[in-house]
Amino acid sequence: MADRWQSTMDHAVAIARKAGEMVREALLADRKVETKSSSVDLVTQTDQKVEKMIIESVKEKFPGHRFIGEESVASGESCILSDLPTWIIDPIDGTTNFVHAFPFVAVSIGFSVNKQIEFGVVYSCLEDKMYTARRGRGAFCNGEPLQVSNQNDINQSIIATEFGSNRDPEAVDKIFSTLRKILCIPVHGVRGAGTAAINMCLVASGSVEAYYEIGIHVWDVAAGSLIVSEAGGVLMDVEGGEADMMSRRIVAANCATIAERVVKEITPFSPQRDDAPLEKN
Amino acid sequence: MADRWQSTMDHAVAIARKAGEMVREALLADRKVETKSSSVDLVTQTDQKVEKMIIESVKEKFPGHRFIGEESVASGESCILSDLPTWIIDPIDGTTNFVHAFPFVAVSIGFSVNKQIEFGVVYSCLEDKMYTARRGRGAFCNGEPLQVSNQNDINQSIIATEFGSNRDPEAVDKIFSTLRKILCIPVHGVRGAGTAAINMCLVASGSVEAYYEIGIHVWDVAAGSLIVSEAGGVLMDVEGGEADMMSRRIVAANCATIAERVVKEITPFSPQRDDAPLEKN
Repeated sequence: MADRWQSTMDHAVAIARKAGEMVREALLADRKVETKSSSVDLVTQTDQKVEKMIIESVKEKFPGHRFIGEESVASGESCILSDLPTWIIDPIDGTTNFVHAFPFVAVSIGFSVNKQIEFGVVYSCLEDKMYTARRGRGAFCNGEPLQVSNQNDINQSIIATEFGSNRDPEAVDKIFSTLRKILCIPVHGVRGAGTAAINMCLVASGSVEAYYEIGIHVWDVAAGSLIVSEAGGVLMDVEGGEADMMSRRIVAANCATIAERVVKEITPFSPQRDDAPLEKN
Repeated sequence: MADRWQSTMDHAVAIARKAGEMVREALLADRKVETKSSSVDLVTQTDQKVEKMIIESVKEKFPGHRFIGEESVASGESCILSDLPTWIIDPIDGTTNFVHAFPFVAVSIGFSVNKQIEFGVVYSCLEDKMYTARRGRGAFCNGEPLQVSNQNDINQSIIATEFGSNRDPEAVDKIFSTLRKILCIPVHGVRGAGTAAINMCLVASGSVEAYYEIGIHVWDVAAGSLIVSEAGGVLMDVEGGEADMMSRRIVAANCATIAERVVKEITPFSPQRDDAPLEKN
């Protein structure tokens, strides 16, 4: 039982690296961009190509496994997590960064069994940093163990977040109100890498004390959440209490003290859940 | 005359690299941090040590040259740019990043003669990227020529900015009002590396279309401004018109169209100029 998912994880690391190579190659080539729901939320051909490569490669090796992928869900597949072994995939986390060659672009692969993440792989492919975590066995970056920051003074902390792609005025009001309250606690600084997966890896690495966001999807945070908790960090809902990967809301922090302090300043709202029933057309 | 400042620039590149090594070494060692005017604005021992090393090295080689350095000004030296050859130095741009090992930390060296920047060197030392520009001869990163983005549609642009270290409510009001208007133009995204020098290098590299900020200092932007203009970009004041390096306000963009569109959304304010007369104590 000890090595139950080791070879599966080895495969995930290998395909994440291959996916990262495809991303880097695409950046060197011309990029044809196709717009989705808003100009902020880009899907590139590479995004779809990389997800297809990952899914085909996994299907061949593990025919019984299921998938939740950003691109598959966008094309109408369901986003329900069963007890079956499930690969939760974001082929390119940080598509806006990708389109602009801004240096944070990640391939994110989480693997869930019985609704629990068994391993997480985030490959920051322009930095060539491979973040990995396996449940109960710690988190690593390029093989080096990761440890969250030991800072528990919010005034000495950096907080990561994103504006996201939502431009609905009511949501923007709440996002800005929260951000201002966080900044003026005051904290040392506010940063954002432009990808949820890498923001979570920055928490795991100790570079930022906390990351919070409303609007992310399960494929953005499935891998990163295990990397954070295996590096000694905590996950929480934006109103406190247990984090729910399908709720599109997350707080990831180095410790409960910082997480709870951040929660106190958040003006919450609830986007449609990832596992909401599909609308019939 | 053609190579008038080449050997001076070679020396600047060499000491920027040496300074970067000191920064990387310090990150591996214990860091003792001393707070300045606010908890957001850190000065580390390394900051002072690196500036001292740079100034001593230059004094030995170029005895007649002058200096404007972040740490020297902090300790009471004047910040007046004369016509004499002057080294404008930020030993660590991104001290908050540095303290947290957030991956963007730069050594910034601008060199001015007759109040005109002759060369600029920005060494992003954790990424090991050496950005250089010499007036009239282009901008480079690790020897590769840099070119700003050719995007002139603001909706397809990434804009870089920072919250800065000012927590005065009136300034924070203006910073947030501007940021919200910029975001909701809408643009593709808003990013911030946490250092002015690297934000300007991201403009020069084409990763972001524009960078604006109020509150920066001449040592943050002296080198970066030449790197932007030599990569084909433009500099502007936040109210339009000519950029003034001592005014603590800057817009750097890939083109005039984008710069002017950003200017339109900025709620301006005027921090005390860098070259304001020193207060007598």
